[in-house]
Formats: sequence, structure tokens, C-alpha cells
Amino acid sequence: MIDFSKEIKEKLSGEYEALCKEYEDLRALGLKLNMARGKPGSEQISLSNDMLKVITPDSDFSSQDCPDVRNYGNLCGFAEIKKLFADILEVSPENIFVGGNSSLNMMFDTIACFMERGSGDKPWNQQGKIRFLCPAPGYDRHFGVTEYFGIEMITVPMTENGPDMDVVEKLVSSDPTIKGIWCVPKYSNPQGITCSDETVRRFAALEPAAKDFRIMWDNAYVIHDINGTPDKLLNIFTELEKNGKEDMVIEFCSTSKMTFPGSGVAALAASRNNLDILKQRYTFQTIGFDKLNMLRHVAYFKDLDGVLAHMQKHRAVLEPRFEMVERVLSKELTGVAEWTKPNGGYFVSVDVMPGCAKRVVQLCKEAGVILTGAGATFPYGRDPEDSNIRLAPTYPPLDELEKALEVFCVCVRLASAEKAGK
Amino acid sequence: MIDFSKEIKEKLSGEYEALCKEYEDLRALGLKLNMARGKPGSEQISLSNDMLKVITPDSDFSSQDCPDVRNYGNLCGFAEIKKLFADILEVSPENIFVGGNSSLNMMFDTIACFMERGSGDKPWNQQGKIRFLCPAPGYDRHFGVTEYFGIEMITVPMTENGPDMDVVEKLVSSDPTIKGIWCVPKYSNPQGITCSDETVRRFAALEPAAKDFRIMWDNAYVIHDINGTPDKLLNIFTELEKNGKEDMVIEFCSTSKMTFPGSGVAALAASRNNLDILKQRYTFQTIGFDKLNMLRHVAYFKDLDGVLAHMQKHRAVLEPRFEMVERVLSKELTGVAEWTKPNGGYFVSVDVMPGCAKRVVQLCKEAGVILTGAGATFPYGRDPEDSNIRLAPTYPPLDELEKALEVFCVCVRLASAEKAGK
Repeated sequence: MIDFSKEIKEKLSGEYEALCKEYEDLRALGLKLNMARGKPGSEQISLSNDMLKVITPDSDFSSQDCPDVRNYGNLCGFAEIKKLFADILEVSPENIFVGGNSSLNMMFDTIACFMERGSGDKPWNQQGKIRFLCPAPGYDRHFGVTEYFGIEMITVPMTENGPDMDVVEKLVSSDPTIKGIWCVPKYSNPQGITCSDETVRRFAALEPAAKDFRIMWDNAYVIHDINGTPDKLLNIFTELEKNGKEDMVIEFCSTSKMTFPGSGVAALAASRNNLDILKQRYTFQTIGFDKLNMLRHVAYFKDLDGVLAHMQKHRAVLEPRFEMVERVLSKELTGVAEWTKPNGGYFVSVDVMPGCAKRVVQLCKEAGVILTGAGATFPYGRDPEDSNIRLAPTYPPLDELEKALEVFCVCVRLASAEKAGK
Repeated sequence: MIDFSKEIKEKLSGEYEALCKEYEDLRALGLKLNMARGKPGSEQISLSNDMLKVITPDSDFSSQDCPDVRNYGNLCGFAEIKKLFADILEVSPENIFVGGNSSLNMMFDTIACFMERGSGDKPWNQQGKIRFLCPAPGYDRHFGVTEYFGIEMITVPMTENGPDMDVVEKLVSSDPTIKGIWCVPKYSNPQGITCSDETVRRFAALEPAAKDFRIMWDNAYVIHDINGTPDKLLNIFTELEKNGKEDMVIEFCSTSKMTFPGSGVAALAASRNNLDILKQRYTFQTIGFDKLNMLRHVAYFKDLDGVLAHMQKHRAVLEPRFEMVERVLSKELTGVAEWTKPNGGYFVSVDVMPGCAKRVVQLCKEAGVILTGAGATFPYGRDPEDSNIRLAPTYPPLDELEKALEVFCVCVRLASAEKAGK
């Protein structure tokens, strides 16, 4: 947690008048900038435009296990798309279920399924009050799904190695009402933290008091590196197998940030037992997902190497953006705030002085720069320290990003100066 | 209900030996034919292949209310696709929610939403035992969704004008545990019956004992004519408005049987109140559906006229098939069975002598012809008369369809002869 030195405090107080002036000047520009959402920018999206021409009226529409992907059938996808996701996630194709366009939707459906049918025991919605562990800062939409289903959320701190496993182990092993935990294991949202090997091993060795405990392993950024020193994530299923605990994890991913957000393909990896449970629901829910879009992805990427080569193009677009964030924040906020320097993912997580985050977001808003709401990275939208702010530098054009960062830094300094002066 | 005349009975008994011989000869052919599922055939699917080239890397990806359909956003779809579905369903675009690839999935989500959050009153899953009316013969997947959520199903007879509204009105007005009814209002599955104007008006004037009663209006075959004398369906929303009861109906449709099954676009039409309830769920469920596929549909069809012209091509493929069914059944089964002669949709519904349907399906199966399971058209798979069989003549190649119909007719005659002889 950031704590101002006496020197910084005096410096900020001394700057207060100048910062007010600087802020008013920026506000007078009438900016309309947005650093709120983890959306790819248009340059990134255009990288995949050629995918729109790989399927033509004369294409071969058959697959190894589907005579015509244009027609109904193949609830879990067809062989070639399963193979592609299996290679991305380093699991066997028989553990893959390929779904629609949204991994969030698959997570929502998974929780819905466990609520209504259970994950191996009684339906979760027939077990009274149940709870989920939510490492935070984390992804607001995970918390949203949990809250929608009336599951109580317990915040778990993040460490530089992932969720604080001392806390996780203690809670999970002692409380049978804890039915699961969310985790973005690689390049976490918003901090960009990747679980260490030890963290993954401790996840895979959990001894839950609830036998129907499930880990929601949202590997959203599985191959989403942004520089030349990518993180490595241990394969959790390999570790689970060693312990005979394959049923404990459901893993999710999608191509939303590889090809087209909203027009990508999502998939999950799970044990046979979990797949059986989920399929029993999906069988009633739909006849099948969009196999032409799956074929489009297979035809475009061909194989894992094709995917990885494509991700290097994304990296080339993203690297300068994250370098810019680091450069501007280092110059303007050293000693005033702390922030992450991720090797992948979509975010930079900034901790400002406790009690200042909401004020910073408000100041930014009034100056025309939209940030993710303060608190959004915590369950129930409540950051106990009012300190964490998520920056999403991928979407705005580069010149707008620079301007937005300038405004952000002035707002952080101004809010800090206000605080320091008190 | 079919009841044999004395003459037919004697004729069938006299034919028994010859029918056995005929059946054994057919069985010896080792056929592998399928008349079970309402899937478009490959000739139909290929009608839409040119849709695969309307979106190219150089396309304009903006819409009236979405700067870039390739990116996240627009939970309910964008203006042009809403307009297209609004024109198809004859409602206002503001009442349209465009979803993923499957209207079944949207119906499933709607029921799930009402179970968990209610449809204007307490959540359905907090109201104890609740019930749904299921006009039968009907669509097995409707019954599947109802059963999945533990909703008790009450069978309502079909008449030539749609569901028996005397029964519907009586039950709905007296029993507050009845929360809804399924209805395929046009070219019903499997009978191809279209609700008469009076039936639609009576639906729109229902006085349910449950104030949170909802009509699931699955307009799956809204423009799916198969000959030159199409049925007309009254617009239920117009009637509902007259009574101030717009909240009572959710209408569904999709392009699955216009373009590509599984790669089409689904939509629902609903009142503002119902849309608000559904959006509250969808907001947590997903960031949005596949807008590139929506754009593909808009670019290909352009407008309602484009859709209607395209449906004429489907009609040209389907009309000879349904004519063939009528021709073969008239020749072979007159006096032995009764069947529908629909002007649209995907099915012909055959009523054989009570107690014979299972036997016919079994005989067909042993002779290599797969039919929809007997009973599938009734809640819980139980046809009280064991009489109804659904024929799906759209998928097999034309020569295979002819052979399958030949086998079917022999099996109906044989099963009837067995019955008549007893």
C-alpha cells in the first residue's frame, strides 16, 4: 500500500495551486477520452480482417466428425476446433467443449448449471447460503455473475504470486459453504499477475471442506503477451491429475482478444465428470453453437503456430501502449502512486493513496476522461482502501491515450495534494 | 382420431401375410435413412452460401448506432438488424432484442430468467410447484426446457385452429400456479397448424389467475411457406395492445431455417417491461452477441423483401417434398391413417391407429428408417393414444425420402394389420 514520504507530502502540498491551474486548463479542452474498458483497439481488430475471406461459398464445409458444419449438430463443436483449443490450453481435445462467442457466457452458464443441478452434490441453490472466494483486485464481471446468483463473495488478497494461498487454503479447507473461487491465472485482470508454479500447485492440492468446490480458472489471457519476457503458467490440469483432483477446475478461454471481440469463439476445458454435468444442461439449452465461425477460425489459424504468430501481431500493437503507460506514470507518479508492469493482458493496475481512488476517477470524469469506476475491481464494488484504479490502455488511439494519461496523472497528483494538505 | 371401418379392417387382415413379405424384402435392403429431425437439406443450406462473401476485409463495419460491429458492445444488437427482425415480426425495433445463434437458447434463457428473477412477481422458483400449458402434439425441445426447470407440464389438445382455447382459458383463469404456455402460432411443430384470428384474439385476451403468466410465442416458421396458399397469422402484439396486455407475450424467431442452422441469428420481441427484466440478466450473462454475423445477415438480405425473396427459394426446394409426402400417403394410407397437409413449416403429423405409433417407429427402425420417437411430440414423451408420428421430410435427399416414405407406409399398414387382426 502506498504511503507518502514526508518529502512527497510537502512537495505535493506545495504544488497544489499549480495543479489546480493545470487541471482547469485540461478541463477547458473539453476532452472525450475513454480508458475504461479492456477492448482491443481498431488497429488490433483489423489484424484479423483476413479471417473474413477464408470461408467462401465454395469452401469445404465438412470436418473430421461433422459432415456439414453449416447444419445443426455437434453440441460441443467439431474435431478440428476442439484440437485448436486443446493445443492452446495444453489439454486433450476430449476435455474441450467449444461454445458460442463469449467465455463470460460460458462461465455464467456453468454457475447457473451448478446452481440448478449441482457440481457433484446437491444443487447449489438448495444448500442455503453459499460463498465464493474472490481474489481482488479482480474482474468486475466475475463478481457480477456471482452476485447475480446470490452467492456471497469473500474477498481474498492478491500477492505478486497470485491469490494469497494461505488465506485460500484456510478458508476452503474449513468452510463447506465455500463452493468456489474465481481466478484469472495468467496476466490477471487488472494487475497482470501470473500465478507462480507454487500457487498453481497449491490450487491443485486444495482440500476443500465442500466436496462440490470448483475453481473457475478464467484463462482469458493465456497467450496474450505484450513484450519479449512473457510469463509462464504451469498447466493446472497436469497438477490436478497428480492429485486425482481433475474435477476441481473448469478452465475458460476465448478468441475474443485474438480475432473479433463478440465474434470470436469461446471454449472450456473440464474433466469428463464436469463435462457430463454441463452437457446435461446444454442439451436442453441449445441444439449447438455457431460452427461456421468455428470453421472460420480453424481455416484462418490452421494450428497453434498460426495462433501464436497472430498473437505476435497483437503484441506489436500493444507493446508501445504499455511502454507509454510505464513511461508517463514513472515520470509523473513516482512516489505518489504504485502500479503494475505486466508482461501481458490488458490492464495496468494503479494504487493511489488510500482514500483517493474515487476522487481521481471523479476528477478524470469531469475533465473528460472515463476510467473504470473506482471499486469495480472489488466484490460489491467496494474497495476497502479506496485505492485501486484500473487503466485500460488498449482501446484509445495512441495520441488520445497519451492525453488521457496526462490527465490521469494530474488528477492523481491533485487528489493526492488535496489529501496531503489535510 | 383414426378409427378403422369394417372394410378397412378386413382388407388389412387379408393383406397381413403379403405385408410381412413386403416388409422383410425392404428390411433386407439394409437401408440407412432418416426422417427424424427438422433439419434443412444441403440444397436448402447452399441457397445461403453467397452470404459468406458479403462481408470482406474491406467492408464498412459501422452501423447507425455502433461505430464498429467487430468490437464489444450493443447488448441487444444494432439498429439495422433490429429493424430487419422488427419487419419480419411486424413489431417496432425498440421491442426487439437480437441474440446469438439459437432461438431455443433465448427461450431457455428467458425461462431461466423468470425462474431466478420472476416475470413481474416473485421468482418462479420461489413459488412452489408451478405449471406450464403444453399444447400437444408439440415441439419436444419446448417440453425439454420446461422439464429441465422442474415445471410441471399440462397437456392441452390441439384443434385445427391452434391450441384448444376453451381448455386454455379455463385453466389459465382458474389456476395461479400456471405461469405460462408454449405456442408455435404458425405452421406448428408437428402439425403445421396456424392459429386462427379468433385463437390469437383469445390468447391476447386471456385473464390469467397468475399475474406473472407468460405466453412463449415461438414464431419459428413466421415466413416459412411451402406452397402458393400460405397461412396468415394475426399479429398478437396488435391484439395485446388493444387489451393493454403487452407484457403477456414473448415472441421468438431466428434465421436458422432461412440461412444456416446453427449459424443464423435469433431474436425476441417483447414489451419494454419484459425487455427490462431480460436485459437485467443478459447484462451479467454476456458482453454481447455476434454482431459480425448480424451484419452478414443485414448485408445479404438488405431488407424484408430480400428475406421474402430468399424464402421463395426455400419454398421451391420444399414444395416437391411435401407434395411427395402427400402423394405417397394418399396412395398408401387413405383410410388407415390421418395426416396434416400444411402450407408451411417443416413437418407432417401423422395419426395412426391408437396403440400403433410405437410399433410403427420400431418397425421402421428395424428396416433402417429413423423417425422421431413415438411420444416425442407430447409432454414427458407420453402420447396417451400412442398414435402420433412426426414426419420430417426436409433433410433426406429426394430419392431417399421416397424410399423412406415407402418403408413408413408399409410399416403403418403392417402395424395396423397386426392390430386389426387382434
